[in-house]
Formats: sequence, structure tokens, C-alpha cells
Amino acid sequence: MNQPRIGVVGATGYAGVELIRILSRHPLLKITYLAAQKLEQSETYGHKISAFRQFGELPALEPFDLERCLDLCDLVFLALPSGISGRLALQIHHAGKKVIDLSGDLRLPKEVYESWYGLASPLTQKDTHAVYGLSDWQAEQIANQSLISNPGCYATAALLSLLPLCQTKLVESQSVWVVDAKSGSTGAGKSPQPHLLLSELSNNFYPYRVGCHQHTPEIEQKLQEESKQADLQIQLTTQLLPIPRGILVSAYIPLCSTISFTDLYEIYQNAYHDTPFVSILPCGEWPQIQSVLGANTCHIALHVDNRTQMLQIFAVIDNLQKGAAGQAVQNMNLMLGWPMETGLSLIGSAP
Amino acid sequence: MNQPRIGVVGATGYAGVELIRILSRHPLLKITYLAAQKLEQSETYGHKISAFRQFGELPALEPFDLERCLDLCDLVFLALPSGISGRLALQIHHAGKKVIDLSGDLRLPKEVYESWYGLASPLTQKDTHAVYGLSDWQAEQIANQSLISNPGCYATAALLSLLPLCQTKLVESQSVWVVDAKSGSTGAGKSPQPHLLLSELSNNFYPYRVGCHQHTPEIEQKLQEESKQADLQIQLTTQLLPIPRGILVSAYIPLCSTISFTDLYEIYQNAYHDTPFVSILPCGEWPQIQSVLGANTCHIALHVDNRTQMLQIFAVIDNLQKGAAGQAVQNMNLMLGWPMETGLSLIGSAP
Amino acid sequence: MNQPRIGVVGATGYAGVELIRILSRHPLLKITYLAAQKLEQSETYGHKISAFRQFGELPALEPFDLERCLDLCDLVFLALPSGISGRLALQIHHAGKKVIDLSGDLRLPKEVYESWYGLASPLTQKDTHAVYGLSDWQAEQIANQSLISNPGCYATAALLSLLPLCQTKLVESQSVWVVDAKSGSTGAGKSPQPHLLLSELSNNFYPYRVGCHQHTPEIEQKLQEESKQADLQIQLTTQLLPIPRGILVSAYIPLCSTISFTDLYEIYQNAYHDTPFVSILPCGEWPQIQSVLGANTCHIALHVDNRTQMLQIFAVIDNLQKGAAGQAVQNMNLMLGWPMETGLSLIGSAP
Amino acid sequence: MNQPRIGVVGATGYAGVELIRILSRHPLLKITYLAAQKLEQSETYGHKISAFRQFGELPALEPFDLERCLDLCDLVFLALPSGISGRLALQIHHAGKKVIDLSGDLRLPKEVYESWYGLASPLTQKDTHAVYGLSDWQAEQIANQSLISNPGCYATAALLSLLPLCQTKLVESQSVWVVDAKSGSTGAGKSPQPHLLLSELSNNFYPYRVGCHQHTPEIEQKLQEESKQADLQIQLTTQLLPIPRGILVSAYIPLCSTISFTDLYEIYQNAYHDTPFVSILPCGEWPQIQSVLGANTCHIALHVDNRTQMLQIFAVIDNLQKGAAGQAVQNMNLMLGWPMETGLSLIGSAP
Repeated sequence: MNQPRIGVVGATGYAGVELIRILSRHPLLKITYLAAQKLEQSETYGHKISAFRQFGELPALEPFDLERCLDLCDLVFLALPSGISGRLALQIHHAGKKVIDLSGDLRLPKEVYESWYGLASPLTQKDTHAVYGLSDWQAEQIANQSLISNPGCYATAALLSLLPLCQTKLVESQSVWVVDAKSGSTGAGKSPQPHLLLSELSNNFYPYRVGCHQHTPEIEQKLQEESKQADLQIQLTTQLLPIPRGILVSAYIPLCSTISFTDLYEIYQNAYHDTPFVSILPCGEWPQIQSVLGANTCHIALHVDNRTQMLQIFAVIDNLQKGAAGQAVQNMNLMLGWPMETGLSLIGSAP
Repeated sequence: MNQPRIGVVGATGYAGVELIRILSRHPLLKITYLAAQKLEQSETYGHKISAFRQFGELPALEPFDLERCLDLCDLVFLALPSGISGRLALQIHHAGKKVIDLSGDLRLPKEVYESWYGLASPLTQKDTHAVYGLSDWQAEQIANQSLISNPGCYATAALLSLLPLCQTKLVESQSVWVVDAKSGSTGAGKSPQPHLLLSELSNNFYPYRVGCHQHTPEIEQKLQEESKQADLQIQLTTQLLPIPRGILVSAYIPLCSTISFTDLYEIYQNAYHDTPFVSILPCGEWPQIQSVLGANTCHIALHVDNRTQMLQIFAVIDNLQKGAAGQAVQNMNLMLGWPMETGLSLIGSAP
Repeated sequence: MNQPRIGVVGATGYAGVELIRILSRHPLLKITYLAAQKLEQSETYGHKISAFRQFGELPALEPFDLERCLDLCDLVFLALPSGISGRLALQIHHAGKKVIDLSGDLRLPKEVYESWYGLASPLTQKDTHAVYGLSDWQAEQIANQSLISNPGCYATAALLSLLPLCQTKLVESQSVWVVDAKSGSTGAGKSPQPHLLLSELSNNFYPYRVGCHQHTPEIEQKLQEESKQADLQIQLTTQLLPIPRGILVSAYIPLCSTISFTDLYEIYQNAYHDTPFVSILPCGEWPQIQSVLGANTCHIALHVDNRTQMLQIFAVIDNLQKGAAGQAVQNMNLMLGWPMETGLSLIGSAP
Repeated sequence: MNQPRIGVVGATGYAGVELIRILSRHPLLKITYLAAQKLEQSETYGHKISAFRQFGELPALEPFDLERCLDLCDLVFLALPSGISGRLALQIHHAGKKVIDLSGDLRLPKEVYESWYGLASPLTQKDTHAVYGLSDWQAEQIANQSLISNPGCYATAALLSLLPLCQTKLVESQSVWVVDAKSGSTGAGKSPQPHLLLSELSNNFYPYRVGCHQHTPEIEQKLQEESKQADLQIQLTTQLLPIPRGILVSAYIPLCSTISFTDLYEIYQNAYHDTPFVSILPCGEWPQIQSVLGANTCHIALHVDNRTQMLQIFAVIDNLQKGAAGQAVQNMNLMLGWPMETGLSLIGSAP
């Protein structure tokens, strides 16, 4: 009855719709505010309408207005583009509301952000970045917070793959870890661009932002923190898959000492034994994107190559669930003191 | 606590897995028996395993055994191929259990079945076919039954499109109604055939079983019953879409008297005002397969063409939900006296 | 050495690039002029560049300029949007050059055009439409022309399917022929629109422009001409397939007298015995889009349904080849007195 | 008139059909023999028929017979599975005919082959492997040969990417080079397997044969030869894309000395200046699979990451063209003394 009032700003984008999809089935809250930065005039083929119709009764979609937002919400999800989102997040937070920002704006210190994003950071020089909402890794740190910066989709898959290594002696900090990442097209958003047309992408696959993807520093920052090795670097490559959803990350790490699959498997099992959302696959089984579509889960597989002394780690997530809206709701659950799986799905939707 | 015990036979096929997907979230029952006709020896790439892993605790999959099935179940879903399923359904039913048969075996009188399916019918000459589980059309007839024959996927979409016309004076019985139907590939099942490979189908589209698809008599039988016009015929064409899920049916009916869109819309609204699962789209909006993926819903659009005196009706469903497992669970809900939407979703999963 | 100089205006669209693809391998001509209506400033991901790079040496792409065009070309292909193309076509033609217009602007008399397209026709009231370049049907009429209006993609598939019926006594003019058509996404062009994104279309399928598609009058006009039945109508429905290329048309025609498959097959064989590009499939075989991808071919299948007295005809083409650029080059071959298959392919590219 | 007589054994597989596609347009030869290992009884949906129909007149397909093959052919392409192909290749070669073997059987010394393939090698201990047909790298070595082992699809993309590095001082031999490779589904062949169904693969992506793909030793062998560094290793990962055709390889190589993009670009340009089929993309442009579909080309992009001292190389090919049939025809051209581009295409077929 006295349920928290939840708002979603950026409600018409892919992450916004996925948030509404999850929140509208969540048993402990009510959606009270839906806003979009600006409302598009011409919605061809009724896409916006059909996307919302399935959810039944919802508040009417509004252009964003700070006063209305503060009046109507106890907690606000911001699913807006980087460059816009962080500033609003700080305003809403300063007004005493809980905020989960899905953009990249609050994930990095001012200088690092500005150099990788080419945008002005909403943070001051003294601010550190906001608490990082990698919910399966650090549930405790998130529990008491009122401002969470939700991780990037690639960063979530990469960090869940790599963080358990950071506390081992298996790896040398001076080596560069290769993170070869592939994502479905919803990761590129809903605004129409030629290279995202089905005509261009459906028989295609290609890398983009080689050497300069903005999730790179977010991953390195967290790996450096956890490993206490400030020179640890990754080589992140992002590539576009001809499917709407899903991320697969293939990571390659040179080993400096040997380890058996069994021992490594145990390290990973221990790292995630408190979360139902991360599964470590048995030896010789490899993750498939379709296994996690529609679910807030991450599947990780490990391979120790004795021939080459190389460690390979694969992880799959649904970029809109664990990579965006699902993890954001998991963070909300933690912030509001609820069981973290409330309203989230372990069961996928494929085929 | 005293929840009905539910079995699924044919648990590894696409309809079987979708049944488990729905039943494992259903609040009022427990799954107690999972069987497959024969267990495949070689499951390459762990597909079977990954398909089941998401559901958490399930009974172990067994080869089908009648005794075990009767011991362990109060109600059984049969998701087996036509030619095998009906005989088992009758056996289980005669032993006093409730049964929902997803095959085509019990949908037609003996002679009609044998002529269209080329298989021996499990029914005797005197038997009529089982009660037809078109749950959004005839909830009352299903409510007290213990043996339900679940409609075919194409038949569900076609009948929900066409049945409201049967009680009007708009159409002449002697004309043939065109039903141009398109389905995703899961409708063709999981056993590997060359024409279902992604290499063959992904840039492709084609008709199959032209003039002889086995859902034809099932649709005609029901239309004739409801219209009381024994000579009503349809021309059903089935075509394979390069997507896993979804059916779109385009129907064309010559009008013998004029009607406005508004009046027609009202006829359809009235026909389905008791079910949350069927939506009639507003004038000028056309249904999209993606709008119903993952949901037990059917979207119908109407077009009265004044230029040609032709009526067009479009309907979309998810072939594994409303076209198979979803409707089967809806039938179960009706048979067991529960609200018919229990455990079923109005919210889809796309994109 | 004294090869005709060929220009392509609208060279960056899908039909334009396909024209260059074909023309650059054509042995009897040289490409001397490539223009686009306006040159896009921002070509993301180098699509324009990569599309042209494969062709080796080409004239530099220019903004369209009438003088330059007339100076540099003997024959010009116009692959521009309707509403713009026809006016330029008439100008270039009046200046004494040969023109093939791929738009819909010159296919219909002024009033019909304006009512279906909602645009001003470039023709005067007295003008008839230009000669219709359905090259496999009327090679002789095209041979001496200097201005050809290239048929629409849907119209090509529909007309090749239906025209051989027009001279028979099989069909009643007062009935409406159903043409249920499905097309890949390149038919919708290259300018980015939300509903054409892979994220929206890849698991989708839906009708559009129901009852008002602008290819309707073009098909009816030709059928009426050939059958001499002015009241013949079609019900055209266009639907979008989640693939880049290809059209399949399913036509349904009530028969007023019986005919065997063999006799019908012979009618169709005779109709197309002079062209290598149209094949009539043997009894019981159905056309597949993948069979014609990359080729200038049309595959037609026939089904006489004795149960319903309905005739079904299926046809597949590649919308960018036979449905646009391939047929345009075939028309050019006819206009220039060359064998009509010169430079065109019977061999496809799938899978 | 006195054209070489060419046979294709394994003519119904994807590489076999692609060979016929290319050979049937080749101006200097005639196809005289088409055989398949065994002829399938049940060709559903007429796939075999439709695949061949486009090619016009062809010799009738036969079960393979050595005598017939030797009688009818001057040069034979073998597109058969590894384990069968090599033995036949040696027999045909010993009988004095020219042979191009597309299988892996003759690419590796006996022991290496047997350990990676798990099959008996047709070579003796003393035999070296056959001449390796990497035609863009070593045209001269191929020119005089009568037995060529055609490279694997992944190996072709990887080696064209990496070989130019081998003669530089940029890289340390003791490091492991990461080769993260992705392929379309035709690489997995035409025999139906559950994981290759469109229903399973179309929204999917996953690694397979991690750490044990049989193209690994073929790549290492060649790199070691050219670099004279016997300890050079690669970490090859192969992953299945939800598209029929195309390979993209992403390679990561730690640099031991710095180099500018310009200097590296020049090294690559020089390495391939004699072949029209390999293009090095300008700085900041990344290869797309769709750019090479249907063409015998390879596009390579280079990235020197100054931040991490890592070199990244991307390459795309069409696995059935440059990765199989196209390169095989290029090898034939070299063996028969023809210009190596005869009958091969630089122009692709996408979209």
C-alpha cells in the first residue's frame, strides 16, 4: 500500500522500455512517473504506442520536468544519453531522492570522463565518481546508497569475467588483457542511423570505436581498484552483431603461473556464490547468448590452455537486462532493502 | 500446498520447453513429471542442458512410461508429434487424469483426420473429436472438461480472426476465404532438417504444403459450426519466415454487404471483451509479430476496403505461446477453475 | 571503343548501387556519370565509401547537374524518389537522351498518379504514361523506345504472375484477385527510419500501406489493358520481411472454369518461352526467395486447387535485380538493340 | 576449344556449389564431372535441384567413381570432409591429374594432423604436407604445382592478417598472438545439426572448439615458417555468427617496439601489392563482413594502440569465396598459367 513511487526518465529508449517491462511486474512498487527528454513528433508505424500498450495502465508519458519528477517519485531511474543524464541525476539526488543513473556520466572521475567521452563532466574536480552499481560483485556497498551509477553493458560482462582474477597471483599486472566484445544492436540505441538498418546489418558484423570505446576506463578503473595494480590495462574491442540483444565477451589473459581448471572454477564459484544471477559453466561448455536473453543472468565459462599458458574467459549477458535495466532494478532492490532478485527473472525468453 | 501435480510429455521440444517456461512461474501448481518420447543420445553443444538449466529445480527428465505418468500427475500436457500423442492422451484420460493434447490427433473426426494427416486416427468412427480448446472463444465449454484438444498454431490465429464474422450477414458462405499465413521456424520443430538450417533459411521465405496443410480442416470445421454453413471453405497457405517465432495471418473475405470500420470494430470488440488476451487494433494500425513475442496475446486488425468490397483481417500471435503452450496453460486454468490469465503474460519480450 | 556513355542519377541508393554493380560488369558500355540528388555530409562508418570501393575505377560522384548529365551521357538511369525523378526524366528525354526512370512518376496517367501518390504528376493531362518496361512481357514494345518507365518491384512480381491469365477464359473479371506480397527491407530504401532498424525488424514481420499501396493502380492498369476488362481489380497487401532482399507474391484467383495443372503450366511456359529470366517451376515445387537473390530471374509456381476452385500463383524475384536495377538494364539492352541478357545474371548469390 | 576439363567432387556441399557458381562463369574451362560422395535419398523442399538449376547445363551429378573421374578430368577440385578427401586427392594426383584439395587432410605433417584432427593422415611419415595454396601470399610457389592443399577458411583470414608481421622486428616470438575469429554458419556445412537450425542460431552467438580448433596448427606452421621462430603460438578462438557467410578475424599482438600506423600500413601495402584481392583499409576505417560477401577479396585494417603497445589487425573474407572456392579457383588459375583473377570477382553481392 505504502509502496515506493518510481519514475523512469528516458522511458521510450530501449533501456527505458526494458525498465518498464521489469518494473510493471515488480510486486513491491508502483510506477508513478514516465518522462522522455523530448517527445518525438512522428512515430512511424506506431512503434511507441505498441511498445507501451502491452504494459496496461501506466502514467502518461511526459516531457521531463524536474518539479514534477521530484513531486511524483521516491526513486528515479535515468535512462538518458551520456552528457545529459548525470547532471539531472545530481539535481534529483540533491533534492533528496534516490537515483540510479544508467548513463556513463557518473562512472569516472572528471578528467578521465572528459578525455574518453569528449563531454563536460557534471562532477567537480573533488567529487569522486558515484558508487558503482555492479550489483553481483558488491551488493554490500550498494545497499546503503542513494545515488548509484549503473555500469555500462560491456563493462558489466567484462568485469564479471575478470574481477575474480584480481585477487589471485595468476596474472601479471604489466600484461594487457584482451577483451574482445560483441554486442547486439539495441546497445546502439533507437535513433535511426544508416549502419543500424536491417538492410545494412543483417548479414554483417564489424568492429567499431577500436581503441577508444568509452567503457575502457570504467573497466580498467575497477580492475585496478580490486587488484591494487595501477598499471593494469585492457585492450577492449567492441563489435556489432546482427541481432537485437545480447553481449558475448571473450577475454584472453596470459598466465604467470599454472592453475587447474578445477581450482579456477572454485575461485569463480566462490566469487559469485551469493548471487543467483551469475553461473559458472562446467568444463568444456561454452556460453551462448540465447541462454540469457530476457533474463538478468550472466553465464561465464573458463578455459585454461596448457599449450599456450593462456587463460580464456567467456561471458554472456542480455545487454538490456543484466547490462542495463535488469541490473538497475537489482540495484534498486539493494538500495531499498529488498531481496535483490525481487521482480527479476532467471528464466530467459529464447528461442 | 495441495497443488495439482502437472506432467509434461514431450518436454524437450519447443512447445514442451515453453510449457515448462510458463508452468515453472505458475503460482498454483507443481511440475512433477517430465518425459520425452525417447531421449536423444547425442545432445550437441549442450542445448538440452542449457534449455533446462534456467528453470532451476525440475523433476529429472524420463523416457515416457504410462504407469509413472499416472502415478505422478493429476493433469498431463502432451506435446508430442501427431500420430503418437492422441493415443496416449486417450489412455491417460481413460485412467481418470485430465489431459491437454497439443497434437492434431483429437481435433478432427476419424475420416477427416485420416484424409488430411495420412495417419490412423486414435478415435473410433463413433467418437467425435475432443473438446476444442480455443480458449478465448469458448471459455465456458472448456471449463468443465477433462480432455482438451489444443488448437493448432495457424488455426488459432485464423479462427480468432474469422470467427466473429460467422454470426454476421456480411459474408457469403459460397465464397472461399483466403488465409495467407506466415510462421517462424519453431513451428517446424526441433529435429534438424536441411531446409531449417540458418544457412538455408536466414535470407529466405517460401510457401510449403500448398493446398494440403493439415490445419485447413480444423479451421473449416470450426467456421462451419459457428456459421452453420456447411460449404464454407478456406484457402490456407502456409509460409516459412526467417525468424524463430511468431505467426501473422492475412485473411481476405469478399463482402456481400457494406459495413463501416466502426461497426465491424464493435463486433470484434464484443466478441473478445471477456478475454484480456485478444486486442483489436485501432483503425489504420497494423499488427506486428514483435508485439506479441513472449506473450499469450493476439492482436487483430481490420480493414474494410470500399474500393474492392473486400474485408481484410490480420492477426499476430506467438506460435509457442498463444499458438501452443500459452493457450494450453489457459485451457488448464479453465479446466481447474482458476482465473484464465493465471501465470500467463500480457507483456512480451521484444526486441 | 565507341561504347554508349551511361549515367546513373541516384547512385547512392540501393537501386543505384545495384545498377553500378551490374553496369560495371557489362561488356558493351562505359559508366561516365554518377550523381546523387544531394550528397550526404556525414556518412557514418564509411558505408558509401565501402559500397563504391569494390567497383574499382568509377567517375567521381557529383551532385546532379542537368548540363553535366546531358554532356556526359547517351543514356541515363534515374533511381530517385518518386516526385522528383519523373520531371528530370522528361527534361533529359526532351534534350534527346535515352532515359530509364525507375520511379513511379511516369507509370500512370496524371489523375491516377496524383490520387495514389499524393504528389503532382510531371505529366500533362494529355500525356499518356511512358512505355512500361516490363521487359520479359513486352520486349518488342520496348525495343524502339527512348523513354522507359521501369516497373515497380511489387508490380513486376505480380504482373509476371498474373498476365498470362489475362488472355484465358479461366477467370471472371468481376472478381477481385488477391495479391499478398512480401518484400525485404531494401525496398524501403536507405534513409534511416526507426521501423527499419535491425533492432525493430529482425524478429518481426508486418503489413503496411494496407489498401493504399501505390503499386496497386500500376498492376490493375496493366491487367485491365491485357485482359480488356476494365473492372478487373486486385487487393494488394504489402508486408515487410526481416531480410534485406527479395519479394514473394502469393496470388489467389477464383476460377470460373476448371483447368488441369498441365494445361495451365503450358500457358505459362508459352508466355515466357522467349525470355531466359522467367522459370515456371514443376508441379509441387514452390519458389524460394533465396533461389533468385543476386539474379535477374523470376520463379513462378502454379497450384490449381480442385477442392476450392481456386488458383494460386507464387512468384519470387530479387527486388533490386528483376524488381529494379536488373530489369532496368534489361530494358537498356532492348533499347540499344543488344541481346537482352547482356551483362545480366541467371546465377544467384545465396546462401 | 581445347579447354581444360574440370571436375568437382563434393559438388552438393556449400563449397562445392560455390565452386560450380564460379567455374560456370569462368571463360577458359569446361566443367565435365560433378560427383558427390553419396547421393542423398531425400532432398526435402527441392534444395538440391534449385541450387543447381540456376547454372544451366551441367554434367549430371554422379556418385564418386575414381575411373570416371580420371577419364573425364584434367583437374579435380575435392570439396569433401577431412578424413576422406586427402586419400582421394593423392590417388587422383598419382594418376597424373592436377588436384586441389579443399579439406584439411594434406595441410599438416602426419603427426600434427593426427593429433589435431583425431583422424588417420593419408600422408606417410616421410611425406611433407602438400604445397599450401595461400594464393595471395605465395603465387610463385603455387604456379608450377599439380597438387595443392587449399587453406582453411579461418586460416586464410588469420594468415593474410599476420604474415606481413613475420618479417619485421615488431613482435616477440615468445608471446602468444590472440586470434579471435567469427564465422557464418555455412562454415559448419550443410548436414543438419540441431545447433545450426535457424530456430537456435538466429538470435545467438557462441564460441566452439575452444583451444582445440583444427585450423590452429595450420596457422602456426605457416607463421613459424615465415618468421623462422619455431616457438610462435596463437590462441585461436572460433565463434559462430548468426549469418550464413563471412569471417571476421580480430588479432591482438603485443608490440616489442613502436611503429607508426603509416609505416605499418606500408609494410602491408607492399606485402599485397601484387594481388588485386587484398585491400588494406585507410586509417580509422574498419572492415565489414558485408563488404566482401560474394567476392574473392580480403579487407584488412590495422590499429596501433599507443596507449597499450598493442597491435590490432582485423580481416574479413567470405568463407565460401576467399575462404574456400574462390581461393581454390585462384590456385587453379596459377597452376594452369592463367591470370590469377580470371573468373573471380572483386565485386560483392551485399546487401
